[in-house]
Amino acid sequence: MDTVSPLQKIRYQYNPKLPAILTEAIQSIGFAEGQKTHAKTDEEKLLQLFPNTYGKPIVTLTKGTSDKLSKQLTVGVILSGGQAPGGHNVIAGLYDGLMKGNTNSQLIGFKGGPGGLVDNSYSILDKNTIDQYRNTGGFDIIGSGRTKIETPEHFSKARETVKKHKLDALVVIGGDDSNTNAALLAEYFIKEGIPCSVIGVPKTIDGDLKNEYIETSFGFDTATKTYAELIGNIQRDAASARKYWHFIKLMGRSASHIALECALACRPNIALISEEVEAKKQTLKEITETICSIITVRATQKENFGVVLIPEGLIEFIPEFKKLISTLNDLLAHHAQEFSAIESQDDKINFVSEKLTDELALLYKSLPHDIKLQLILDRDPHGNVQVSRIETEKLIVAMVEKRLAELKSQGIYTGSFSYQTHFFGYEGRCAFPSNFDADYCYSLGMTAWALAAGGYTGYLSSVRNLTKPASEWIAGGIPLTMMMNIEKRHGAEKPVIQKALVTLDSKPFKTFAAQRDTWAVHTSYRFPGAIQYFGPAEVADRPTETLLLEHQ
Amino acid sequence: MDTVSPLQKIRYQYNPKLPAILTEAIQSIGFAEGQKTHAKTDEEKLLQLFPNTYGKPIVTLTKGTSDKLSKQLTVGVILSGGQAPGGHNVIAGLYDGLMKGNTNSQLIGFKGGPGGLVDNSYSILDKNTIDQYRNTGGFDIIGSGRTKIETPEHFSKARETVKKHKLDALVVIGGDDSNTNAALLAEYFIKEGIPCSVIGVPKTIDGDLKNEYIETSFGFDTATKTYAELIGNIQRDAASARKYWHFIKLMGRSASHIALECALACRPNIALISEEVEAKKQTLKEITETICSIITVRATQKENFGVVLIPEGLIEFIPEFKKLISTLNDLLAHHAQEFSAIESQDDKINFVSEKLTDELALLYKSLPHDIKLQLILDRDPHGNVQVSRIETEKLIVAMVEKRLAELKSQGIYTGSFSYQTHFFGYEGRCAFPSNFDADYCYSLGMTAWALAAGGYTGYLSSVRNLTKPASEWIAGGIPLTMMMNIEKRHGAEKPVIQKALVTLDSKPFKTFAAQRDTWAVHTSYRFPGAIQYFGPAEVADRPTETLLLEHQ
Repeated sequence: MDTVSPLQKIRYQYNPKLPAILTEAIQSIGFAEGQKTHAKTDEEKLLQLFPNTYGKPIVTLTKGTSDKLSKQLTVGVILSGGQAPGGHNVIAGLYDGLMKGNTNSQLIGFKGGPGGLVDNSYSILDKNTIDQYRNTGGFDIIGSGRTKIETPEHFSKARETVKKHKLDALVVIGGDDSNTNAALLAEYFIKEGIPCSVIGVPKTIDGDLKNEYIETSFGFDTATKTYAELIGNIQRDAASARKYWHFIKLMGRSASHIALECALACRPNIALISEEVEAKKQTLKEITETICSIITVRATQKENFGVVLIPEGLIEFIPEFKKLISTLNDLLAHHAQEFSAIESQDDKINFVSEKLTDELALLYKSLPHDIKLQLILDRDPHGNVQVSRIETEKLIVAMVEKRLAELKSQGIYTGSFSYQTHFFGYEGRCAFPSNFDADYCYSLGMTAWALAAGGYTGYLSSVRNLTKPASEWIAGGIPLTMMMNIEKRHGAEKPVIQKALVTLDSKPFKTFAAQRDTWAVHTSYRFPGAIQYFGPAEVADRPTETLLLEHQ
Repeated sequence: MDTVSPLQKIRYQYNPKLPAILTEAIQSIGFAEGQKTHAKTDEEKLLQLFPNTYGKPIVTLTKGTSDKLSKQLTVGVILSGGQAPGGHNVIAGLYDGLMKGNTNSQLIGFKGGPGGLVDNSYSILDKNTIDQYRNTGGFDIIGSGRTKIETPEHFSKARETVKKHKLDALVVIGGDDSNTNAALLAEYFIKEGIPCSVIGVPKTIDGDLKNEYIETSFGFDTATKTYAELIGNIQRDAASARKYWHFIKLMGRSASHIALECALACRPNIALISEEVEAKKQTLKEITETICSIITVRATQKENFGVVLIPEGLIEFIPEFKKLISTLNDLLAHHAQEFSAIESQDDKINFVSEKLTDELALLYKSLPHDIKLQLILDRDPHGNVQVSRIETEKLIVAMVEKRLAELKSQGIYTGSFSYQTHFFGYEGRCAFPSNFDADYCYSLGMTAWALAAGGYTGYLSSVRNLTKPASEWIAGGIPLTMMMNIEKRHGAEKPVIQKALVTLDSKPFKTFAAQRDTWAVHTSYRFPGAIQYFGPAEVADRPTETLLLEHQ
């Protein structure tokens, strides 16, 4: 048996589709610049923070001429943050662009994320290396990391690395935070007189890095399709066995884009959307009640099965829960010694309960024993509750189970309740990129090369018109500063790229909301199946439902 | 958006590949019968139990003539037990065979498993219905169930249903137990003078229904490929982020075929094989030690990441654990009142610990608190420990974490240990069947029709030579009685089809064992990717590594 799987071997041969302009000879590619741009808010403050890079025009690659694309370049690349399918193709597109421009150009990969730039840990990415990673998942070509370039020392070490390699450009592949970082680096390099462009590339499976100019972040397509495959399979299992309710938590951090996309693709009985929970100030009790009422109705139809999607960030969007967590953080900080002197777990729970307001004590009391303990015992080094460690899917199940028992004793619920819980996240972050992500990423990488060659800095590589065939895609660059605003983080004002959460007036949400009551009661499961890399375009090249609804 | 996914729509059009003989006109298909057959053991007893069906010859479909295939037939079909990809194609193949023989034939689906036959709950399966389920996953066309036809009342009710519908044949799609049941029904119908053939079809994702004549059960191919997709993705994530050890439990009941197949396909750092643990009488401590020593070596290489596969049935194969469980069952049965009178959980644990032998007390004491409680509190209606509810992956992680802390304090382990746990099972049982399973199942279904038309009863539909192209597959029937032996179950002697567990002298195990030490230390991950239904045959039609190693 080969060490490389048959699919991997054949994916090496896949030629990603490109916007027409990038298939042209370099002599025929030019840059069109638009008007000076503006941020939506905080323009004053942003101008102060980015005196050299604020207000740049949007750039579009067009038929034209430019003497810049044939320049010999040395470019560095960084993968930042969590994995997303297609990262290797961004690097391959960047490399192929560089070679298309000038075969003497060089690509340097900094290892293990931004930390690699700070510490000058790198490897030269040659054709042989690139070819082993084309159209594959993962970030393992150079690794990723979560270090941020924040301190003055970090900045100056990054500057030294750039000088040492005489980098003409640095490409940062990352999410909202990493691209904010890219903007700061771009500004810093100009201030320091370092002639190194900084170009960002929009990465995140969470789908929360998007706006008027960025239709989607890469990786969202493949990750959601992988989760939708599994959800569809589980739905079919539920409808065949007719005996389990499956509670499925989905990765996605704060935003519920992943849960929403999977709901549109699969039509489960229930999908919770954190942003809606927050907007409607729903309590845990209300959420439990909604789920139980659907379970109750389905039981009357002898359908004691179903599927519930739960976004990872849910807990933090339940207003009362948020309050409970911050109260517990304060409370345990103030009574640290007293609390740790208590021996039995039950006494610890009582100690805390007595100190909460009536409202919060009621909520705390309603929680399952495990969660009660987790909230007061499982704390991070700063003494805070580890919210991300709370198994939300199990919390919801425990609340539902308890409530159904009450409804049963009242004669309202007549079914039998058995359940399974799942959490999908790591399963989708490193899948072989779908054709869409393979094409999109390769195009983003090659566009990043063109922007770098054009000498643009502080830009996000942008490929738009994505619901059309790739040949009609529009490639160019969007100034990072125009997507920024000022937010308070840990007490200090910081420039940040705004996270795009699900909005209740968006077409994807409204489409979901219009149908969910039907899906809840009448089993309407849709089975997307595994991602296909071959076969007819409607199967192999279809973008996400979210993208189609937003842009078609 | 369509209610049916693009993949489902296009899979409707897939024409499963068939053994050459089944593509012939019915006038050219005949039956070749071999010698009288024998069971490997317990021949005397089996002959007594199956006086009418024991010793039948193996049947092979060959070029020839038979006037039987054009007979108008009424056939019933049952899906029994857990879902496996391809069940719908067995039914489609059976239906198409019936229509090929005589368009006036009829197929009746009994709903919700064997219980549907007992209660005469059914639906007529016509072309329109069948067409909606071709090449799809799930058992939802008629549902499945786990009721066994056991009591005399069940048998007589089944007989009445068969008489009511004037069934010429009954096809039972199920695992070892269901096919044992099929054999008993076949014998019973003859004894009762009911002219109804009973034909079994070998189903189970667990892969433990195989022998000299049955190369694999259907569903194993698709399920293992779905799990291998996810394991490969997680491996790539582990190698990219370089910070987590992933502990992945895999469905498969007692047998470790699924874990072994996934290990061969993915090359993880560690894969536990229950049958080896039992054969080598490994203790939980030894298993923990093996895992920790690999983690320790990888830490010296700065590789604080890895993937561990754990078969679902592991716990029951650890001799000392098996002993602990049965001792606890006895102990709590004898001291039920005393035990339930104890209030605090800690006191309950102490009560039990004091009554165990030194050896078992040591093991019990070494377990994490949660598992200790689960073993004495979480009991089934008969008062027994619910072994299948124990989260083995979390047990292993807890043992490993504890041991690594010791090794760290001794200066032996120098890494940092973070982990994630996963359980894959429901994700793969209802996937769209791979081309292999789609072809195999459709062939099994059509072969079942031919056997039924030929008047054979007490046979398992058999399609062999599976590592060759489908046109070279050999179709026929194997007498169920020749695969049986007598086992003691709940104190009584019962005829059963022997479960095929992993054997340590098999080629799949030996291939794995020869390479695992390398995979443990040197990251050698293989990434199978999602199941492909289109594309070149080496990607879309390749059987499992297990099948290739066993039969090529």
